[in-house]
Amino acid sequence: MSKLKIAVLVSGSGSNLQALIDAAACGSIQGQIEIVISDRPGAYALQRAEKHGITAACIDKKSYENKIDFDIQLFNRLNEVQPDLIILAGYLSILSSELIEKYRGKIINIHPSLLPAFGGKGFYGEKVHKAVIESGAKVSGATVHFVDENTDTGPIILQKAVVVLYGDTPETLAKRVLAVEHYLIVKAAELFCSNKLKQEGLNVRILRE
Amino acid sequence: MSKLKIAVLVSGSGSNLQALIDAAACGSIQGQIEIVISDRPGAYALQRAEKHGITAACIDKKSYENKIDFDIQLFNRLNEVQPDLIILAGYLSILSSELIEKYRGKIINIHPSLLPAFGGKGFYGEKVHKAVIESGAKVSGATVHFVDENTDTGPIILQKAVVVLYGDTPETLAKRVLAVEHYLIVKAAELFCSNKLKQEGLNVRILRE
Repeated sequence: MSKLKIAVLVSGSGSNLQALIDAAACGSIQGQIEIVISDRPGAYALQRAEKHGITAACIDKKSYENKIDFDIQLFNRLNEVQPDLIILAGYLSILSSELIEKYRGKIINIHPSLLPAFGGKGFYGEKVHKAVIESGAKVSGATVHFVDENTDTGPIILQKAVVVLYGDTPETLAKRVLAVEHYLIVKAAELFCSNKLKQEGLNVRILRE
Repeated sequence: MSKLKIAVLVSGSGSNLQALIDAAACGSIQGQIEIVISDRPGAYALQRAEKHGITAACIDKKSYENKIDFDIQLFNRLNEVQPDLIILAGYLSILSSELIEKYRGKIINIHPSLLPAFGGKGFYGEKVHKAVIESGAKVSGATVHFVDENTDTGPIILQKAVVVLYGDTPETLAKRVLAVEHYLIVKAAELFCSNKLKQEGLNVRILRE
């Protein structure tokens, strides 16, 4: 079986990207990360990519006068690669509807809560964990899902719960959830690349390994 | 330490009530179930109560012309008992604001999902599990929380996750969640009756056992 081409979109330090790089390197993911694209010039994820000989591109959102030009640039850059799978690994920009349409069923996102709880607009990064703690919830977690036109609503691929501890701060909770994110993002990429994910409406069936 | 007086409100078969009866009987809950009140005459929970020598009362909601009269009747019946703890164990009527005010911090409810997900008006019984399955979520669970004026929004005491399996129906998922409900409702009653629950805003701190 030939390896699938993967593009990873990032905005930050890229620890989820690192988990993917490591899993691809050891062969557990039947795919090759062809390109890492950041929407922010300073993202450490770009350095991680370069260290591993992966093409690292920055399409700096702030350098574009309007979102449409930025969207077109990203769309074109991805089309050069023709990825089989696009992974949003802490990517904070909203994808254009053209991009989502073209790569429907091929874009996955990781979210640091058990969706549908603590998802949607405004829920990203530490804001999610802050909201979880303020709500008094005793269980949070992480979700990997396919991306659709709305924020955090696409078909759920994998979820895993994380217990909220007394005294947790957004930082301490984020740390434990992040460990689960690493596991889930790699597992989802593995399953996708070995053709084990089957969408049935909003439900994603995981075929027997 | 003297035993606290517990009132349990029910609408259905009362398997959560049974879990509480068993736990009280073996002494793990430092409380005594003084009364079981159903808002439906046919509820099997009433028979369970009688079998164990517990006062079983029915305040049949349908026999009242308006909700206010029904609310007053329930309020008065509870006041005769002066319970230290009121447990809603699958109770489907909405409590009056007077009742909630008088017993604030002393009323707990069990909900068959990980709140805030799949909670609020219209989410009760199998409707919850149906919505979970239709959403494609991979994790659900159960929540025990203090009751406030709104539906399913009060301070969360305990939560536990339950994995949603491929092929689950509302019935099969309900069965596994119910087992967790039994555990959580008993645990919450134990903690409450041994004075181990401390509210700090929306957060419920569990004191070391």
